[in-house]
Amino acid sequence: MDVIDIIIAKRESRELTDRQIDWLIPAYTAGTVADEQMSALAMAILLNGMSRREVSRWTEAMIRTGIRMELPGLGRPTTDKHSTGGVGDKITLPLAPLVASCGAAVPQLSGRGLGHTGGTLDKFESIPGWRAQLSEAEMLSVLRETGAVVCAAGDGLAPADKKLYALRDVTGTVESIPLIASSIMSKKIAEGTGALVLDVKVGSGAFMKDLDRARELAETMVSLGTDHDVKTVALLTDMSTPLGLTAGNALEVRESVEVLAGGGPADVVELTLALAREMLANAGIDGVDPAENLRNGKAMDVWRRMVRAQGGDPDAELPVAREQHVLTAQSSGTLVSLDALQVGVAAWRLGAGRARKEDPVQAGAGVVMHAKPGDEVSAGQPLLTLNTDTPERFDAALAALEGAWRIERAGSGRAREAEAIRSRPLILDRIA
Amino acid sequence: MDVIDIIIAKRESRELTDRQIDWLIPAYTAGTVADEQMSALAMAILLNGMSRREVSRWTEAMIRTGIRMELPGLGRPTTDKHSTGGVGDKITLPLAPLVASCGAAVPQLSGRGLGHTGGTLDKFESIPGWRAQLSEAEMLSVLRETGAVVCAAGDGLAPADKKLYALRDVTGTVESIPLIASSIMSKKIAEGTGALVLDVKVGSGAFMKDLDRARELAETMVSLGTDHDVKTVALLTDMSTPLGLTAGNALEVRESVEVLAGGGPADVVELTLALAREMLANAGIDGVDPAENLRNGKAMDVWRRMVRAQGGDPDAELPVAREQHVLTAQSSGTLVSLDALQVGVAAWRLGAGRARKEDPVQAGAGVVMHAKPGDEVSAGQPLLTLNTDTPERFDAALAALEGAWRIERAGSGRAREAEAIRSRPLILDRIA
Repeated sequence: MDVIDIIIAKRESRELTDRQIDWLIPAYTAGTVADEQMSALAMAILLNGMSRREVSRWTEAMIRTGIRMELPGLGRPTTDKHSTGGVGDKITLPLAPLVASCGAAVPQLSGRGLGHTGGTLDKFESIPGWRAQLSEAEMLSVLRETGAVVCAAGDGLAPADKKLYALRDVTGTVESIPLIASSIMSKKIAEGTGALVLDVKVGSGAFMKDLDRARELAETMVSLGTDHDVKTVALLTDMSTPLGLTAGNALEVRESVEVLAGGGPADVVELTLALAREMLANAGIDGVDPAENLRNGKAMDVWRRMVRAQGGDPDAELPVAREQHVLTAQSSGTLVSLDALQVGVAAWRLGAGRARKEDPVQAGAGVVMHAKPGDEVSAGQPLLTLNTDTPERFDAALAALEGAWRIERAGSGRAREAEAIRSRPLILDRIA
Repeated sequence: MDVIDIIIAKRESRELTDRQIDWLIPAYTAGTVADEQMSALAMAILLNGMSRREVSRWTEAMIRTGIRMELPGLGRPTTDKHSTGGVGDKITLPLAPLVASCGAAVPQLSGRGLGHTGGTLDKFESIPGWRAQLSEAEMLSVLRETGAVVCAAGDGLAPADKKLYALRDVTGTVESIPLIASSIMSKKIAEGTGALVLDVKVGSGAFMKDLDRARELAETMVSLGTDHDVKTVALLTDMSTPLGLTAGNALEVRESVEVLAGGGPADVVELTLALAREMLANAGIDGVDPAENLRNGKAMDVWRRMVRAQGGDPDAELPVAREQHVLTAQSSGTLVSLDALQVGVAAWRLGAGRARKEDPVQAGAGVVMHAKPGDEVSAGQPLLTLNTDTPERFDAALAALEGAWRIERAGSGRAREAEAIRSRPLILDRIA
């Protein structure tokens, strides 16, 4: 088997054979195929695509480079959720304990944030004492004991993906739907869940800026799940503006706890419930209303057990940033837009995110929003509060927020417009 | 400057800026830009192309990574020729001394063969004693003394190209017209010639299989030469069947000497004269008939001086392969085709060529043709003689020749068809 033949085939838009893919992925993982060969192939895949058969085989080959976990003896169906990443996307935090409280087991192997999108583990790690690194035995024990576990994926799952993702990151070959889909799904399938709900974000703050590309990614991932006997459904959800009123690690934990206490911002509650219903349906659980479990404290009970099981103190004070800077509305009227990407970049620059894998993050840093699109605001009223431990970062964050929102002054159509903005759907489509 | 931005720009079919190119090429040569980044970019260039401005800037940046030679005090105009490579393409051997005998200086920095196309240096090295490696001072001295020099290009010319070519070779990114053109032209411009004639081969035995691609390559290279004040002309010439009657190192030297003695196969003579006339015109030399200098021995005199100046003995016996295998015509009729690629691969497998840069070649190995398309043949008559020192190679060469020729039996249109084949043009187009 010759890697150059494989590269040329894809360069010429031909389909790779099963034999080629089955040889290539382990050869790359072992180093027989060099990084410069794989990056040329990744670029050819990005530009010329892969068929459904190729992506499926590619994903399967990536899974086979590592272990495929089994989740035995749980006594309840497993179901998991994956988000493609957004700004203020703390949904996993209320969702995992909520779904567990309804009778499913939720094995969430998560990652850290990179760039303007936050990472679930970074958010949990702002809880004093909480540990992301668990052995497989510890993970199973937390899952069995509490019904949900959120922890770092071990190196044993799809090591080919880890190597390939690091390569794509430095070679301008990240934005390929087949490669994104196989990267996400190889890890999710290897983690052993029986069902999976995908939250594919669309809009400025998301990886996928337009609905067509997001739908294509969702369809590819749903196919891959189905091909590997994982019941998979995807929701396409809006990420043109941040989710909830916070973007930043401890800030988002606080908001998540509000949701678990039966309160919290309407959009976070809406998306949490929609995803919970999909996960429960996929897991074959009916007759339980997740909204009820937010109100009656059952979801909160699981949250507290989960946090404690991984060394965290659910009653501890969460870190607060040392410095604040408030941005106020420059005029009165309707807030018609607040850009997700710009808020995400500002939170990142304040210290909530990282530019490189090895960078630390600040637990307290981030952005608090005091209004969301559709809200009426008055001149001088606080719009955003920026939080950081390192005030020299304010300038960079303020630069990122230049023109991030728009306020329209009172006019004849104002009330109607505000209503239209408020009623814009959060869930744009569903792919099953 | 960020290499990922450059890769993404080309991935999205945008033009690279002068600043990006000027930064990229030395950064790659120095190792700041990694091989896996350059190979992803090379694939994006192969698939999305480069504008004339980009190729010109890219070539200029490659030249600037090394020295640009000056050829002072020669007292005659310099002119060079480059062929994109074919089977039986020994034209440089008679051409360089012929053009020198007409009053031009020919500084030929050449390469070795790889794959099925032979290399000029490999051919010269079959002459006992001949040395390809000259210092710059030696090179200038041979050029001054004899009017022509053929030697290995030093490492100082366009080192970026050397590194990039080696990368493209292993990453399936060779066949890009902008990258081929800038690779060839960066070295030819850096070698300091004032004029250049390109022989762009078209057909099965050539790099470019069809006329349109060959024309595009020729036009790109002519533009690059013109942009860098090198008077450049290209001929597109047929490479569907081998040139002359030999493919192999010493075999081709013998045939070249026949041409220099006023004989030799008609196609080799025709192409040698056509290229000589272009080179002389480009160098501003008129009033000399190169055909005359083949007949009167002046070209042969320069050949003998050239060979001697580099340690070779023009009177030495050339190596002959130890073993021969003759293939005969299976029927009588007109030989209507003899495939260049298949003959080239056979010669390579017999030992005339190499699969890797570091492989040795056999001086005597190769294929002798006893008939060319258009010739009448009789059943049982020898068609090809295979030559090698290592008879275990015959099987692989015979496999390469499977179906390599076609003989059409006598019929009503036979004489007319044979005539049509014989009169097919060797020179397909001229780009100035």
